Amino acid sequence: MAESWSFLDTFEPDFRPLVVIELAKGAKEETIEWFTKRVVDKKANGGAQLLVKPLVTENGDENIYLVGASHLRLLLGAETVGLVKECNDNSMRTFTYSSRKTFKDFADDNHNFLTMAESQYIIKHELENLRAKDEKIIPGYPQAKLYPGKSIVRRLLTSGILVQIFPLHDREELKKLRHSWYGRVKVGYQPLDEIRCYFGETIALYFGFLEYFTFALIPMAVIGIPYYVFAWEDYDKYVMFATFNLLWSTVILEVWKRICAIMTYRWGTLLMKRQFEEPRPGFHGVLGINPITGREEPVYSSIKRQIRIYLVSVPFVCLCLYFSLYVMMIYFDLEQWALDYHEENESNFSSLMLFVPSIIYAVVIEIMNRIYRYAAEFLTSWENHRLESSYQNHLILKVLVFNFLNCFASLFYIAFVLFDMKLLRQSLATLLITSQILNQFAESLLPYWLQKRQKKRLKKRMCSLKTDTDLSLVEQVNLEREMGTYFGTFDDYLELFLQFGYVSLFSCVYPLAAVFAVLNNITEIYSDALKMCRVYKRPFAEPTANIGVWQLAFETMSVISVVTNCILIGMSPQVNALFPDSKMDLMLTVALVEHLLLAIKFIMAFVIPDKPRDIQIKLAKLEFESLEALKQQQMKLAAESLKE
Amino acid sequence: MAESWSFLDTFEPDFRPLVVIELAKGAKEETIEWFTKRVVDKKANGGAQLLVKPLVTENGDENIYLVGASHLRLLLGAETVGLVKECNDNSMRTFTYSSRKTFKDFADDNHNFLTMAESQYIIKHELENLRAKDEKIIPGYPQAKLYPGKSIVRRLLTSGILVQIFPLHDREELKKLRHSWYGRVKVGYQPLDEIRCYFGETIALYFGFLEYFTFALIPMAVIGIPYYVFAWEDYDKYVMFATFNLLWSTVILEVWKRICAIMTYRWGTLLMKRQFEEPRPGFHGVLGINPITGREEPVYSSIKRQIRIYLVSVPFVCLCLYFSLYVMMIYFDLEQWALDYHEENESNFSSLMLFVPSIIYAVVIEIMNRIYRYAAEFLTSWENHRLESSYQNHLILKVLVFNFLNCFASLFYIAFVLFDMKLLRQSLATLLITSQILNQFAESLLPYWLQKRQKKRLKKRMCSLKTDTDLSLVEQVNLEREMGTYFGTFDDYLELFLQFGYVSLFSCVYPLAAVFAVLNNITEIYSDALKMCRVYKRPFAEPTANIGVWQLAFETMSVISVVTNCILIGMSPQVNALFPDSKMDLMLTVALVEHLLLAIKFIMAFVIPDKPRDIQIKLAKLEFESLEALKQQQMKLAAESLKE
Repeated sequence: MAESWSFLDTFEPDFRPLVVIELAKGAKEETIEWFTKRVVDKKANGGAQLLVKPLVTENGDENIYLVGASHLRLLLGAETVGLVKECNDNSMRTFTYSSRKTFKDFADDNHNFLTMAESQYIIKHELENLRAKDEKIIPGYPQAKLYPGKSIVRRLLTSGILVQIFPLHDREELKKLRHSWYGRVKVGYQPLDEIRCYFGETIALYFGFLEYFTFALIPMAVIGIPYYVFAWEDYDKYVMFATFNLLWSTVILEVWKRICAIMTYRWGTLLMKRQFEEPRPGFHGVLGINPITGREEPVYSSIKRQIRIYLVSVPFVCLCLYFSLYVMMIYFDLEQWALDYHEENESNFSSLMLFVPSIIYAVVIEIMNRIYRYAAEFLTSWENHRLESSYQNHLILKVLVFNFLNCFASLFYIAFVLFDMKLLRQSLATLLITSQILNQFAESLLPYWLQKRQKKRLKKRMCSLKTDTDLSLVEQVNLEREMGTYFGTFDDYLELFLQFGYVSLFSCVYPLAAVFAVLNNITEIYSDALKMCRVYKRPFAEPTANIGVWQLAFETMSVISVVTNCILIGMSPQVNALFPDSKMDLMLTVALVEHLLLAIKFIMAFVIPDKPRDIQIKLAKLEFESLEALKQQQMKLAAESLKE
Repeated sequence: MAESWSFLDTFEPDFRPLVVIELAKGAKEETIEWFTKRVVDKKANGGAQLLVKPLVTENGDENIYLVGASHLRLLLGAETVGLVKECNDNSMRTFTYSSRKTFKDFADDNHNFLTMAESQYIIKHELENLRAKDEKIIPGYPQAKLYPGKSIVRRLLTSGILVQIFPLHDREELKKLRHSWYGRVKVGYQPLDEIRCYFGETIALYFGFLEYFTFALIPMAVIGIPYYVFAWEDYDKYVMFATFNLLWSTVILEVWKRICAIMTYRWGTLLMKRQFEEPRPGFHGVLGINPITGREEPVYSSIKRQIRIYLVSVPFVCLCLYFSLYVMMIYFDLEQWALDYHEENESNFSSLMLFVPSIIYAVVIEIMNRIYRYAAEFLTSWENHRLESSYQNHLILKVLVFNFLNCFASLFYIAFVLFDMKLLRQSLATLLITSQILNQFAESLLPYWLQKRQKKRLKKRMCSLKTDTDLSLVEQVNLEREMGTYFGTFDDYLELFLQFGYVSLFSCVYPLAAVFAVLNNITEIYSDALKMCRVYKRPFAEPTANIGVWQLAFETMSVISVVTNCILIGMSPQVNALFPDSKMDLMLTVALVEHLLLAIKFIMAFVIPDKPRDIQIKLAKLEFESLEALKQQQMKLAAESLKE
């Protein structure tokens, strides 16, 4: 492996490894040669024109390559992916190589103009867009078919020749980030801009949302505490609390859109154009013509997919929902049994036993959620969606429906069938707290502990006693490639979504839920930060302009919570006492209030602009400029044409 | 006035008058000269480069000018306004002069490549975009201030120097259109494509919607007839009818979006880019800097506008609403009086008298609606909105709220306060039928009759006895400039909106409403067609891709109608008889059904795609092509940069 630099046309003295490519151990020599040649080959020849260097490891039987790129190459790549950067006049504009001088902090020798995360994103994009020309197969693997335009990296991945591609950590930067994020004990905001520079927009936006959501819950928590402390049971106070909660939850979701717009404008992703979506790696079908691109690519009949969805997935999901309800009924049996036991032999032990069924049920719910998650992923992948976005939407829908029912069915049952507010309060508290503890443990602490152990083992094997930061490159790569992979923000948002359900669905019965949510979220920020920095491989940055479908999910939850809270208040004995003669009047009043609240919610959502005024002006300015430029161009053309 | 052609650089033998400009009778010579010079001046000098010819009239004291343009000029204008036309490969693309050969039916000598309506739209656009350069005032009118970039035509209009600009009819085309539209007695679709060619997309879309809506009402009408004929009063039949109605109204509104997309794709407006919106003509303020364009233009503080809206407009609207409710109470007094009278002296006359209050009330409602309409226009214009779209939204909101309350308050009162279903049915029928008759009369027949009389007078004055079609150009212009101006589709949509309310809000009480609506709409199509072709000046074509805010208005109405119908069914004695013991159970069931229906509505609206699959594919194809072109360009640039 002495020919490490031989692929390069020019000698690049400051080769900076950005991305690691790990090929299978037994990968054939001719395949590796062909692949690396394609990666370093000139753009004009259909290559990616990147720099590649093999990593010489101890035993040498691993095929690990480091990928980098020249500064110029990265700048051109930034134009290709449509990166938006800040200009000298503080406006945000799409970066182009020809207008590079107008951008803030640009200098031909400033290699930090693009952040490391951006550079890695560009390299990932270029690698994924390395497409087959006239190759019919991957050299050395006749069973791995190719066709013109097929992404080579995706085929290598699905054929198992490519094990993984991941971006390298920057030990120095990470240390700085860790310090300002959770290293010192301080109260304050997270360094979101630094998180974005290091991990990209999707992850920064998640932490931004987590932080915002925590702050937004504080008023609810503060108002909720006296209800618990003084055991306020007056109906007017409850109505006030619930009304405040419902309107507040609308306000916070609307305001989040504005804050999100401010952040993503600053980060440039609000202005980024959507890229054309290629088929997802796992998509398969018979070769046909794509009606949109006119290219030859696998085509899978939409009817077949519909059949799979409606004849297999939907019944399966219904079965799972039924099973979840069945488990719920078992829980109620257990609950009854514990109650009987407590009544028969009253003791401290037996009163403790009262909580056991709830705790067991909470654990079972968590386990069922996790098992179902795998099933949902398998099914959605089997449905063979062409686009990643469509895959994600179907997966999210499946998971949300099940998790919602699984987590809240027992509470709905207690509230609206058993009418047992005391049990509801107790169940809610147990479910919320148990699931929070379980989540914190399973998500961050357990992996962190495993990771620590493994690192120790690895260090021992390497016979080195150096500290974290002066690991050699080889050690660093070996360490990082063994780390777990972070599969995106899905689970984190899901957790917040369910928490929002616990807080808002029955808020008028258990005002303390918001307090627990706030406490949990504060530790959640730290444990998630730990997870990102210490436990998982660095993920590739993903530019994004909003939290996507989660906004809709949270809004739906807040609509459902209007309905549940109105019914709960209507059922409370205090309110019932106000209408001693006529249940009709009570019901009518409740229905009226509910419809009014819903109407106010929708009007508020409609009236509050999604973007703050200054962002609107900035966007309008950009649009005006591009229209103006187009008009100028046409005017020139017109003047020329008319002169002839 | 012999120098008629002197402004033209080139002699244009086939000058075709497209647009008429009428200047005030006493307009100063220097102003006219300056203005016409600007209109014909070269683009490079800031002119519009159009052709102008004065119309030599009998008495000669009128300043009327005919505007046309060379074929080349129109083609370049088509590019400027971003017209989308069909290509040779049947795809729709934005027209550019350089790619003109790829468009269907394009030939250098085919002057019908652009329809007359398109040509007129282009000329209007060019005239409106004729902007002041360094003029500070309009020559001859020192009080009419100008500033760089101000639209000259708009200043001339607001100063009263320019009386009107309108497009000329094409007698031949109009005759053909009339014949295929309503000339022969036949059952079938309207010639929407021809209407669009002649009147533009906005008007064609209105007629498309009217036709679609009429067809969509037919199933409701057909199902409703037996309920009336056999006087079905079983609760299950009512529930079925109402459920069908509610789901049907969701389906038709969703399907309309798809049909609208199909039509506007064919017409090219679905793909048209939104133009940058200039301030509306009436907007005034102190000269300042527009933060978006950076240009000097009038600026009006947003806070002042908010004050006007919230401190004047909102209280005024509330006062009007109160007044409307007051009138309603008087109506009920009248109603009571008529009932008493009928009971005292029972006779044919007295039973006829029972209908009189309703009819009077219906007439009063119509009158109030029309008066309020003027007030709303005045107020909204006084609020001084910068953009036409913002003006329109505020106007529509004001008018909708008032009309909704004015038309339906009495029905709500009868249904939910008096609980008198018989009176509700009678009131609904009277209101619906009276308002339909009044509308047809006031909107089309009256103006048509006035127009006919005026035309006769004019013809007498002209001492000519020729038929319509061989009027000379002078006669035609004189005739058309006296015609009324069509102020857009607002009133037509409003009428449909209120009709939709009558049909859907209380559909389960009066299933026959749909029958009347269908009958009315069939005549409405003919009377509106008559109105467009015979009564009003030809309006300028307005490209549009959808029915805009009306879609939202209709959807809101269909949500409200779910609530009203559920309550009505819940109140019916038949349903009450099913729950003899417990009003609670009845209310719960009604509330549950209502929420279920609402949920189904929202899910349906979410699930049904807004655009049919083939349109989606065509749009995706276009997007892909433009991204591909951009990528190619970048690749080329990148290859060049990397070669250096």
